[in-house]
Amino acid sequence: MPGGRHHLQIPGPTNVPDRVLRALAAPTIDHRGPEFAALALDLLERLKTVFATRGPVIVYPSSGTGAWEAALVNTLSPGDRVLACETGHFATLWRDMAEKLGLRVEFLPGDWRHGADPDAIAERLTADLAAGSSEPAFAAVMVVHNETSTGVRSRVAEIRAALDRVRHPALLLVDTISSLASMDHRHDEWGVDVTVGCSQKGLMLPPGLGFNAVSEKALEAARSARLPRSYWDWGPILNANRDGYFPYTPPTNLLYGLREALALLEEEGLPAVFARHDRHAEATRRAVRGWGLEILCADPREYSSSLTAVLLPEPHDADKVRRIVLERFDMSLGTGLGRLAGRVFRIGHLGHFDDISLAGTLCGVEMGLAAAGVPIERGGVQAALASLEAS
Amino acid sequence: MPGGRHHLQIPGPTNVPDRVLRALAAPTIDHRGPEFAALALDLLERLKTVFATRGPVIVYPSSGTGAWEAALVNTLSPGDRVLACETGHFATLWRDMAEKLGLRVEFLPGDWRHGADPDAIAERLTADLAAGSSEPAFAAVMVVHNETSTGVRSRVAEIRAALDRVRHPALLLVDTISSLASMDHRHDEWGVDVTVGCSQKGLMLPPGLGFNAVSEKALEAARSARLPRSYWDWGPILNANRDGYFPYTPPTNLLYGLREALALLEEEGLPAVFARHDRHAEATRRAVRGWGLEILCADPREYSSSLTAVLLPEPHDADKVRRIVLERFDMSLGTGLGRLAGRVFRIGHLGHFDDISLAGTLCGVEMGLAAAGVPIERGGVQAALASLEAS
Amino acid sequence: MPGGRHHLQIPGPTNVPDRVLRALAAPTIDHRGPEFAALALDLLERLKTVFATRGPVIVYPSSGTGAWEAALVNTLSPGDRVLACETGHFATLWRDMAEKLGLRVEFLPGDWRHGADPDAIAERLTADLAAGSSEPAFAAVMVVHNETSTGVRSRVAEIRAALDRVRHPALLLVDTISSLASMDHRHDEWGVDVTVGCSQKGLMLPPGLGFNAVSEKALEAARSARLPRSYWDWGPILNANRDGYFPYTPPTNLLYGLREALALLEEEGLPAVFARHDRHAEATRRAVRGWGLEILCADPREYSSSLTAVLLPEPHDADKVRRIVLERFDMSLGTGLGRLAGRVFRIGHLGHFDDISLAGTLCGVEMGLAAAGVPIERGGVQAALASLEAS
Amino acid sequence: MPGGRHHLQIPGPTNVPDRVLRALAAPTIDHRGPEFAALALDLLERLKTVFATRGPVIVYPSSGTGAWEAALVNTLSPGDRVLACETGHFATLWRDMAEKLGLRVEFLPGDWRHGADPDAIAERLTADLAAGSSEPAFAAVMVVHNETSTGVRSRVAEIRAALDRVRHPALLLVDTISSLASMDHRHDEWGVDVTVGCSQKGLMLPPGLGFNAVSEKALEAARSARLPRSYWDWGPILNANRDGYFPYTPPTNLLYGLREALALLEEEGLPAVFARHDRHAEATRRAVRGWGLEILCADPREYSSSLTAVLLPEPHDADKVRRIVLERFDMSLGTGLGRLAGRVFRIGHLGHFDDISLAGTLCGVEMGLAAAGVPIERGGVQAALASLEAS
Repeated sequence: MPGGRHHLQIPGPTNVPDRVLRALAAPTIDHRGPEFAALALDLLERLKTVFATRGPVIVYPSSGTGAWEAALVNTLSPGDRVLACETGHFATLWRDMAEKLGLRVEFLPGDWRHGADPDAIAERLTADLAAGSSEPAFAAVMVVHNETSTGVRSRVAEIRAALDRVRHPALLLVDTISSLASMDHRHDEWGVDVTVGCSQKGLMLPPGLGFNAVSEKALEAARSARLPRSYWDWGPILNANRDGYFPYTPPTNLLYGLREALALLEEEGLPAVFARHDRHAEATRRAVRGWGLEILCADPREYSSSLTAVLLPEPHDADKVRRIVLERFDMSLGTGLGRLAGRVFRIGHLGHFDDISLAGTLCGVEMGLAAAGVPIERGGVQAALASLEAS
Repeated sequence: MPGGRHHLQIPGPTNVPDRVLRALAAPTIDHRGPEFAALALDLLERLKTVFATRGPVIVYPSSGTGAWEAALVNTLSPGDRVLACETGHFATLWRDMAEKLGLRVEFLPGDWRHGADPDAIAERLTADLAAGSSEPAFAAVMVVHNETSTGVRSRVAEIRAALDRVRHPALLLVDTISSLASMDHRHDEWGVDVTVGCSQKGLMLPPGLGFNAVSEKALEAARSARLPRSYWDWGPILNANRDGYFPYTPPTNLLYGLREALALLEEEGLPAVFARHDRHAEATRRAVRGWGLEILCADPREYSSSLTAVLLPEPHDADKVRRIVLERFDMSLGTGLGRLAGRVFRIGHLGHFDDISLAGTLCGVEMGLAAAGVPIERGGVQAALASLEAS
Repeated sequence: MPGGRHHLQIPGPTNVPDRVLRALAAPTIDHRGPEFAALALDLLERLKTVFATRGPVIVYPSSGTGAWEAALVNTLSPGDRVLACETGHFATLWRDMAEKLGLRVEFLPGDWRHGADPDAIAERLTADLAAGSSEPAFAAVMVVHNETSTGVRSRVAEIRAALDRVRHPALLLVDTISSLASMDHRHDEWGVDVTVGCSQKGLMLPPGLGFNAVSEKALEAARSARLPRSYWDWGPILNANRDGYFPYTPPTNLLYGLREALALLEEEGLPAVFARHDRHAEATRRAVRGWGLEILCADPREYSSSLTAVLLPEPHDADKVRRIVLERFDMSLGTGLGRLAGRVFRIGHLGHFDDISLAGTLCGVEMGLAAAGVPIERGGVQAALASLEAS
Repeated sequence: MPGGRHHLQIPGPTNVPDRVLRALAAPTIDHRGPEFAALALDLLERLKTVFATRGPVIVYPSSGTGAWEAALVNTLSPGDRVLACETGHFATLWRDMAEKLGLRVEFLPGDWRHGADPDAIAERLTADLAAGSSEPAFAAVMVVHNETSTGVRSRVAEIRAALDRVRHPALLLVDTISSLASMDHRHDEWGVDVTVGCSQKGLMLPPGLGFNAVSEKALEAARSARLPRSYWDWGPILNANRDGYFPYTPPTNLLYGLREALALLEEEGLPAVFARHDRHAEATRRAVRGWGLEILCADPREYSSSLTAVLLPEPHDADKVRRIVLERFDMSLGTGLGRLAGRVFRIGHLGHFDDISLAGTLCGVEMGLAAAGVPIERGGVQAALASLEAS
């Protein structure tokens, strides 16, 4: 598609700001030298704000999937029971990983249109405690904060409250892959034990960094956890981090990018960043309704602010829409994953983004829907503009 | 304006493609070495296609204004009479330059809403020839192909025909600053003697390169032209260019960018590039009419394909619209220049551009007009989308 | 250290070519789209040449340490016995990792000045087989091809021959972290089962990519290996790679860099790349001898071509030399690791490197040694120049 | 020359720091917007320090040759007499330019091994004044501060003193193309009227910016100067600069680079920058003497600190040395220009440079001289190292 630029409107990787891209291109330095240590110490401190924690944040040369694995192998032992919540494709993949690693996972069922249900979790945990000594209690609860496959947000603070209410000792492990730095997440305040994050979404970086923010309780659990671990082991990393180093070669150039991305977030201010995402998400939903289409997320309390999954009426093929939008407008939209394949497409409106880019994105979607023969009303873009103008 | 990127929708400098920006950042090389010579010979050859000429194209380390001066000092002598055509602000500036350089300029009047009038030129040249020996004939006719201040295109082929018809020997000097590589321009076929161009518009480069494409007749004129010249002198440049060198240090890194920009144009193909600009211009005009506003250009034959100047109803201030659009949407629009100050704003839709970016741009303009209190109808964006979808 | 550039002469990360750095800064694309698939398929094919294999190469978003872990968890089961060879600090770390993962490691002792001894390995494996059913045989032999902490190369082909001679079925796992794309390594011809590599050494990239080249036999072993694995699991990666995709988000921008780095290697040709490294290593050793200092590597058959470790006479502190060289000349040298701390410094002469840069490096080392008060003869640089001129 | 990087050791363009290269790649912005104005106002102020002036500095989109022309056309009138000083090839080219522009130039002869002679200038000016009204006095004296073709520095402060001593009213026009930001130059203190500079030498930028620093007296002269001028005219530029704008499109991306280059100079501090250049020049001369070769500059008071021209014994061809150095070591050296063609090569040691890079450069020259069969002693590099270590 010659003429202009690619429009990367999948829910991650997101459009990387030109400042960050240029930062990536700085010469690599000695990861054992003083300049590197100064860089690392600075980043490790500033990252805490993004996770809203006073505790440590671990940085891995990995994708977010690696950070998932790290959260599990540092805190759990072979055969441990964990409770996972079926919110969509990525919750399912994380469940699969836990099983591959030798954990016994119970998967609290969901319909892929709602977030993890705090009441259902409380109920299941109550039963768990009541089971008494017949089985060890769940060692952890795994929740995806913002399910990237569905655009549904789980109410983590309420889930924390549920755990507290039933006095269950399970660790709370939360995936913030597609919410971190886009939607409000409070590691400390919400009592999360491990927050899993990555670089290529709200942090506006290319893929290649995985994160774990870890609570005191998680660190305590790590002392007795017996899943084999080496690369992911928090211990040597935390030790080396104290002086600004890493036990193995860190991904220096991505850290340059992280420095610039953090500067961008700090210049805007996290509350403003979250408000921007909320505003763009609202405008997007107005567009979807304006087209007469259905938002996959069924509960307005659980709307994602970083992406919107749009459900097409049968028998229309969402991937055909995506293909047309890619070919005609050089814009990538997110595909339907797992059981949603062909049924939904996903609009990413997170990261480095603004009103004009959102408006252009929605125009492209509107034209693409029409070109694909999906029956829509043409008021979507106008509704979105009205929403942007009013807020 | 945090959150996203800047949208540079002035009619130049234009949005530079990321490929070109990265090319600029390659290390500077020895301008007297073999690698440079290979680069220069390649570029000088490929540039000819952009000007549609088989003759030489001169490259200056300069802005387009420098290329204006070069066109004059290489072909004219102190006191020479030239005929310039008042099409807008830039035509006026070029006229002023000619006068500062010691030429006697007659300025064929215009209303800034039309292009140079072939018939009026023919008439004036006929009278000129009839005046006989009382005065030397006009040595040159100066025309701005695409008046950047008004969005009006002059019909250069018809002007050439007018000169031929009345058999006037004047050189035809044409400014293609904001049309080159965006709108069809044919140096050889249209009998242009000097085409003046620059880097920061359709060529999608930062400012810093000026161009002269020159005809045989212009080279002949240069032999007797007596305006003092040194930096701009074609002669030593053409000599040195033969081997891929320059008589003084060339702007190497912009030449790297030029190589990449030419590759982009060649990948798309110039006819496709022109068609894309035509299509985007048409969609933009549909939007303007959809808002109930007036396009400055009065003659549909003369619509520019690289920018559209929008006339606001009294007493609305176009600069207020621009300011609001800049503040709220981080988008730059072109200001009204000279006598059009405050009356018009200009939308640049040239260079590295695509449907989504155009749609976003027009959404921003629509929201900005509304925010500035300009009375508009809201159908502009929809009309533009309909136009894009239909073409 | 103002004025000039940093000179990164540690044995990795190495100086990243400007072409590669700029490639890193290209916009991230959709990892599920057709453009990405074309990129990945191309890279996965071209990588094979670098490993001299016709089999698959796995690419991880990880450091080289991650690729170590992948080699183990894909092929081995809890409690498996493996034979590791003590060649230096990194062999020791890999041994430690194997133990952390639950393997039983026997560490064939070494003096950190020699490579892994093919005869000693043969002897140990013979005894292993003779032990019969009392214990399962070693499941794998772990060898570091080029020990980055010592500058000693192990003779992998001879180790392969030793395994064959005694008909031991163990897998041969080889770390080529600091030899890959700098020194001749032949995965297929030498019968290596897993070759472990990474991006930031001979491949001239920033850190962030780990590699496993895997033999048929290794793939067979993976079918029954029972160490828990998910992130590192070859299976889903090989499946997804078939179509140019990855089971989790790949590090796109590092892959852009890889494309450029492979192009650089292909332009030069791997045999020429190896010859260049050999030549620079020889010149460096001439310099060390010229200074009257000792090369750590004790056996000329085992000299590394990518780095040279220099042993200082007692009581001189190698880290003092390094500190002075860093402060005065803005050049990083490798520190002594593990038991070599303070005793040696290491000169990296691998990756993106040339005669002038090597000469400058050696001048810096010579001046630094003198400034640190190490008693040296001043003929080192001259001897290196003579070596470069003669070869 | 595969393997490593190009070594650009001509006396300009110089090696551009990676920070500056990356800065060039930032997106171009609206040159009429507030962000640009802030950038320009900041740069125009900080540039003054580089010229050691409190007066204005004019920035052109041009090469240094354009800034030469600007100095002349702003201050002089057709037929004006000027005194130029023959110091080498560039002084000759500037003389030629003055003649092409219609000035009457007297060329004070020189041997290309000395700077402009203050006494000879004083003598000539005295005679000029004595000639009385028969001819108008010289309107200007043109001096090249650091003759790039010879590596000879003219003593500008002494020339100023000479003009003052004989009370001659001529303007003093000084070319600092290859000294600016490398060698001490004091526009105000030395009473220079126009200082001519450019971007691609000590300022560590690519070519494309020309500079004029102008005195009050020069501004006064501009009021009556009658050489035709438009592009180069100081007046409109100074007017527009007051608000941070330019009368025509400025070379925005080079200005980004300038911002970064100024930051580098400020971080190091100009006195330290000058001292570094002095030190590197001294080490280079030690090397030349160590090789038993002759430095072109005949007077130690006039040694250039930014480059050294090396004279080869007959019949050795300096261009053969350069060719060999380029082919074998991928290093560019400066050619002999004009009457020095084939007789000298020039080593650039200016701009972004450091001890290691200088040492590597001199090693390359030593090896290249040997390879070219030039009879040299081999102590050059060692002598340079000794000089660096001692200072």
